[in-house]
Amino acid sequence: MLINKKQFHTIWLKENNCNIVQIIDQRALPFELKIVDLKTIDDVFYAIREMLVRGAPLIGVTAAYGMYLGILNSKDNLSNNKIIQFAKYLKSARPTAVNLEYAVDLITRNIISLKSNKEKINIALELANKLKEKEILASKKIGEYGVKIIEDIYKKNNNKTINILTHCNAGWLACIDYGTATAPIYKAKEKGINVHVWVDETRPRNQGGKLTAWELEQNNIPHTIISDNTGGLLMQKGMVDLVIVGSDRTTITGDVANKIGTYLKALAAFDNNIPFYVALPTSTIDPDISDGITEIPIEERNSDEVKYMEGLYNNKITKVLVTPQNSNALNYGFDITPAKYVTALITEKGICKANKNNITKTLAKNE
Amino acid sequence: MLINKKQFHTIWLKENNCNIVQIIDQRALPFELKIVDLKTIDDVFYAIREMLVRGAPLIGVTAAYGMYLGILNSKDNLSNNKIIQFAKYLKSARPTAVNLEYAVDLITRNIISLKSNKEKINIALELANKLKEKEILASKKIGEYGVKIIEDIYKKNNNKTINILTHCNAGWLACIDYGTATAPIYKAKEKGINVHVWVDETRPRNQGGKLTAWELEQNNIPHTIISDNTGGLLMQKGMVDLVIVGSDRTTITGDVANKIGTYLKALAAFDNNIPFYVALPTSTIDPDISDGITEIPIEERNSDEVKYMEGLYNNKITKVLVTPQNSNALNYGFDITPAKYVTALITEKGICKANKNNITKTLAKNE
Repeated sequence: MLINKKQFHTIWLKENNCNIVQIIDQRALPFELKIVDLKTIDDVFYAIREMLVRGAPLIGVTAAYGMYLGILNSKDNLSNNKIIQFAKYLKSARPTAVNLEYAVDLITRNIISLKSNKEKINIALELANKLKEKEILASKKIGEYGVKIIEDIYKKNNNKTINILTHCNAGWLACIDYGTATAPIYKAKEKGINVHVWVDETRPRNQGGKLTAWELEQNNIPHTIISDNTGGLLMQKGMVDLVIVGSDRTTITGDVANKIGTYLKALAAFDNNIPFYVALPTSTIDPDISDGITEIPIEERNSDEVKYMEGLYNNKITKVLVTPQNSNALNYGFDITPAKYVTALITEKGICKANKNNITKTLAKNE
Repeated sequence: MLINKKQFHTIWLKENNCNIVQIIDQRALPFELKIVDLKTIDDVFYAIREMLVRGAPLIGVTAAYGMYLGILNSKDNLSNNKIIQFAKYLKSARPTAVNLEYAVDLITRNIISLKSNKEKINIALELANKLKEKEILASKKIGEYGVKIIEDIYKKNNNKTINILTHCNAGWLACIDYGTATAPIYKAKEKGINVHVWVDETRPRNQGGKLTAWELEQNNIPHTIISDNTGGLLMQKGMVDLVIVGSDRTTITGDVANKIGTYLKALAAFDNNIPFYVALPTSTIDPDISDGITEIPIEERNSDEVKYMEGLYNNKITKVLVTPQNSNALNYGFDITPAKYVTALITEKGICKANKNNITKTLAKNE
């Protein structure tokens, strides 16, 4: 998508230099566009752990390039043990990220039996590139399926602007391109459908107010930032046509684990008869889990993310304390939206009702 | 209630000087305890408009003292016209505050026919003092009725700590003492019932994370600050026993207008079978309105409250930009919780179901 009117992915090989991977340090957004070179596996570990990159698909692809860089830089003494160590090391950067594990295992599995180091390097790079392309294609497909939903409402509403509410950043910044929840929105824009996006601020890390707002602005999508408290009122007032959010993990029965606060918007959408869609690559569906509330572990993060807030002051990114110094805070990262509140899932394999039968059928599709 | 272990009200006459009213500048909390002298009606206007004082009961009492100060300082040329001008002026400080209008009209009505200026001054002061006492008594009564609800759950749960979620600040800082939503909590503490409070941060002005957390801390009530997104998950996980919030305006049918985001917590409480109580003085009940969603106007505030956040940096209160500079934001102050999601109202006249029949009966009670 566009940054300063130029096409970008969130991760790429440096021009004319296959030994360096480049990313955007998303911690500095929306205030500064900071491109960072990843030259070693340690650089990649740091980028994932410190959240320079975030979002399941992007974490996965970054980790794949991390395996490549690890192998590339130790070409003279590359044992299978070392490859397994690399994999363990990268997985520990953010232990709950499913895509990270998938990507690292994919590379490991495919190179460990190869003979020459050169071959290992080449195949690792090829697999990382392929994974990147696969993620882009999945986002595009989600966009194509999802835009039909927007188009239908647009026609029904006599081409009046469609107001879409989204939570957190399931945008192209979380992926490689297009995003998940934002993919249908970008596709709608391409098709000339007038959309306006209500962007939930998404405390405590403000990925909505910082990242989603920024990427929509860069891509000329009209949008308005609201506090996380506001969506319910907007739905009561008829100011929301549909909700589209992402998912970090989805049960085979259709329960959705997504950024904390998603569940509250699903309840409000349900109470006001507003369609609530979840856009996700089928890779986030966990076929082994059928009860989201009891079975999906919820990440507890540092409470300082609640107690402090980062923003721009005198052109410098500055952290301010927003609570009493001695008060406790609690910081859960996700909540569970039960399947009964989900109108449907928008996947790269099509739109699918949030129940076991339909999800199982969708997973079985080849596309 | 306590500040630094000393008993305080939110407003009082300066010791040994009836010509000066003192308040706490709540904008500086929790970072600084700043006592401000109000010497003139202009000081009072400023304190209300700039939100040094906030909360319906406190605004009302401050305005009553404002009338008194206006009259006191113009004793040599005090026409009835001037009194009416004072009233208009104060009402314009925050036009939607019902208690402000009530307080100002109460003073005007009772002094306008009096003969001597001295009498007008004395009666205005007496009425302001009485209104203050009346508000304290109402809060105490709300506490006494409300604590029974907490006590019942406490007994049922075999004296396990009761977890109460609250939104915004309906605390003693919004009143004169005890508060509304917090009154049952302070009473529970007095009775030796173990309570713990989940404090919604309450974006965008953070009255929860700043004011409620601070007043609970000062009064030794265990509490934990959470982002506004978190309450739903805590309810899903069985970590909330009941919700108590305040109300800015209540319809005769029991719909509740309260700080934006209240509605989302009511939905989550309903979805998880958790009691949802609204604590309010009956003065906030509007007998002329029966549909909250269509009839209660919602205040739209400056969008900079969403785009900027104030906190402590280098021991100075500092405002940081937390969104892209050019993104739009929208800032509604309240939402409507339909009566069907309200377990009951806790008023100074008793506990009452949120329906027209019961509310009408409660309003008719003398107490």
